[in-house]
Parts: sequence; structure tokens; C-alpha cells
Amino acid sequence: MSIKSDDIGQFDKQYRINLINSLIGFRALNLLGTTSNDGISNLCIISSVFHLGANPPLIGLVIRPEREHNDTLRNIRTTGQYTLNNVLPEWYMQAHQTSASYPSGVSEFDTCHFKKQYVNGFKAPFVAQSTVRIGLQLRETIDMEINGTTLVIGEIVHILTEDALIAADGTVDHHKAETLTVAGLDTYYLPQPIGRLAYAKPGIEPHVLNGNTLNSKL
Amino acid sequence: MSIKSDDIGQFDKQYRINLINSLIGFRALNLLGTTSNDGISNLCIISSVFHLGANPPLIGLVIRPEREHNDTLRNIRTTGQYTLNNVLPEWYMQAHQTSASYPSGVSEFDTCHFKKQYVNGFKAPFVAQSTVRIGLQLRETIDMEINGTTLVIGEIVHILTEDALIAADGTVDHHKAETLTVAGLDTYYLPQPIGRLAYAKPGIEPHVLNGNTLNSKL
Repeated sequence: MSIKSDDIGQFDKQYRINLINSLIGFRALNLLGTTSNDGISNLCIISSVFHLGANPPLIGLVIRPEREHNDTLRNIRTTGQYTLNNVLPEWYMQAHQTSASYPSGVSEFDTCHFKKQYVNGFKAPFVAQSTVRIGLQLRETIDMEINGTTLVIGEIVHILTEDALIAADGTVDHHKAETLTVAGLDTYYLPQPIGRLAYAKPGIEPHVLNGNTLNSKL
Repeated sequence: MSIKSDDIGQFDKQYRINLINSLIGFRALNLLGTTSNDGISNLCIISSVFHLGANPPLIGLVIRPEREHNDTLRNIRTTGQYTLNNVLPEWYMQAHQTSASYPSGVSEFDTCHFKKQYVNGFKAPFVAQSTVRIGLQLRETIDMEINGTTLVIGEIVHILTEDALIAADGTVDHHKAETLTVAGLDTYYLPQPIGRLAYAKPGIEPHVLNGNTLNSKL
């Protein structure tokens, strides 16, 4: 099956949205928490978060030009701070519900039953129910002329998690953390570990790190 | 457990890389295929791909400023074309091996045993073994002063897949496609479906779309 540019342009709008959104595979799934200067909190589910670099520790995300996200972008711009919080199976439906178009001024923390958690000196609320919580300081926004979206680049300034979820080498264990992922706009998945592989070098066969193979098919 | 900016700056380099790379959760996992003007192909595994928008159909990705990726970025800039191909359990170790620092001019298609697939009028090679293959036309590159990375924005001009992997509403079924995901730099996962949820609206309880709940924990 081969689909070309012209086909994509002629698809029904919803078909195209579903297809293009699901093409790249599984996506990082987080709840994005912010607050206005008046102290009204906001929470929305987001699947466009990407790793930009480890030194300085930077994360990027995409904000769409549509109405329901304006509170989020305005809050990030005015306070300079926001949080990303992982999504767990026990309450993924509540997390999805934050994508509904609630009126400006209504907090999704309240309507979707999430508990706010604050850290001294940091304005944006974390999600208490999450097991991996990241606090970010805004570094840069890039307005994309090509489609009206905004890229938001932030530096990681807080990490809230449990000791048991970070391995000795620094890697977060998202299996233990019960982190979910999403494909497309609305299909949620719980990943099962296949294997952790050794650092790749030319001339050396790829191999699993000892003790880290689970459910391997190889 | 609370980690702050100062702590992050003082971590051992490898610990910091592992921690920061794994924080955001599961990431879109793809093989990025390119060719030079001399016809030397290049293939590298990439986990920084993000959805930028559906109309026009745009995908973004991050290229690091390091040596092993220079062929890729040079090829994208000179030919204006590249491919993204999903990674399957049967050969994820080969896919990981493309991250090894092979000398410039050596094709990872050959050293890692991938079969090239070409489409008429499109220069960049697809991975024949993949089940979801995307051909992109370069639209924009953004050099990030903050850390020396480059954001590459491309428009989807080809989609190669099987009919059976696209649902009636356009959504790609990544469970059927056997698409893998990765957390951090080296830990691979096969996601299991939890549920597909209806479009969220204020005042309506979140619920699964009929017939699309598998292994639901709720």
C-alpha cells in the first residue's frame, strides 16, 4: 500500500488527522501542568514531548494553535514554569479527559480529579498521582510559521520521583513506574520490556546487558 | 525523592545522560534512512521524532551535534529527502547496532543487514523489513543555539504500509504492526493495548470506544 502527497491532501479531514498523528509510532505521554498569575491551575495531556539534550537538560514540546491550549501557552509564557507528569493505567481515562475543551478559568485538576503538588519556590503544580514528575523552566519559544504551532523549550530544574524507580546508572525504570504511552490521539498502551542492549560498537555483535532481558523474543 | 538543578549539574556525566534521556517516558522509535549525492546510503536509529501537525502533514526530529550523525544531517540537507521506518521485535538488535560509530562512507544498511527499498522519484532508501515507512521532504532546519542540536522539519510525501495496518478511520494499528518503543537510550519495549478512548468532551465521563478495549485494567 503506497500513499502519496496528493492522496494525503485529498483524505477526509478526520481520516488524515488520525493517520498522520499515528504514523510515527508510540509517543511520550505526559500531563502538562501550569498556573496563571491569578493562581488558576491548568492541566492538559500532551504527546509531543521530545528529548532535546542532556547537558544542559532540555526538553521540547509542541503547542497547537487551537483554543483549548491557549491557557497553557499563556501560563507558560507569563510564569516561565511548567511541569510534565507521567500517566498511569489506574487513571488514564481521567488523564484523557483533560483534553476536553473546558472553559478558560476552569481547572482540569478539579474537573478531572487530580491532586496538585507544589514545591517551594516553584509556581507550577505537579500531579501528585504521577510517579515521575518533572519541573521545567522556560528557556525559549519558537513560533513555527509553517503551521502556527509553538515549540516550547524548557530546562529541567526539578525531578520528583521515588528512589526505587531510578536504576544505579541513572535510568528511570518506566516499567516499574507503570508509565503509559499513546499511539495516535486516543489509543493507550502499557509497554512490556523486551531487552536492554549494550552500547553499540562497530564490529561487536549487538547483545543484551546481563540481567536485563525480559520477555525477549530473540 | 527530589532532584534539583544543582544536583543534575553535579551528577556523573553518564548518570546524567541516562537520567535525562529516560525522564519523559517512552519515545517514538524509528530508523532514519538517507543517501548522499554519491549514492552512499546511511541508516541510524532515532528516538527524538515528534508530531508537528497534520495539515500540512509535518514531522520534526532532533539531530545531535556529534560526529556519528553528521552524514545523516549532510545527506538530508543535500538531497532534501529522508525516510522514517518503524522497528520490529525480530530485528531490534540490528536496529540498535546502527547507533555504532561506523566510519563515514560505510552504509549501516550493509553492516547491520537491512534491505533498501526505493520508490520512483524519491532518493532516500526505505527499510524493506519495516511495516510502517514514511518518506519526508525537508521543509526547514532550525539550528538551536542553546545546545548545538538541529531541529529538522519535514513534510510527509510517502507512506508505505499494508492495508491491514490502517483502521477504517485512518489510525495506524501499531500493535498489529509490531512497532517497538524505547525508554532512555537502550531499553526496548513492546506496548500492549489498554484501551482506545472516545473524543473527550466537558461533562461526559471518559469511556472506551466499543470493541477497542484490550487488557483493560479499569
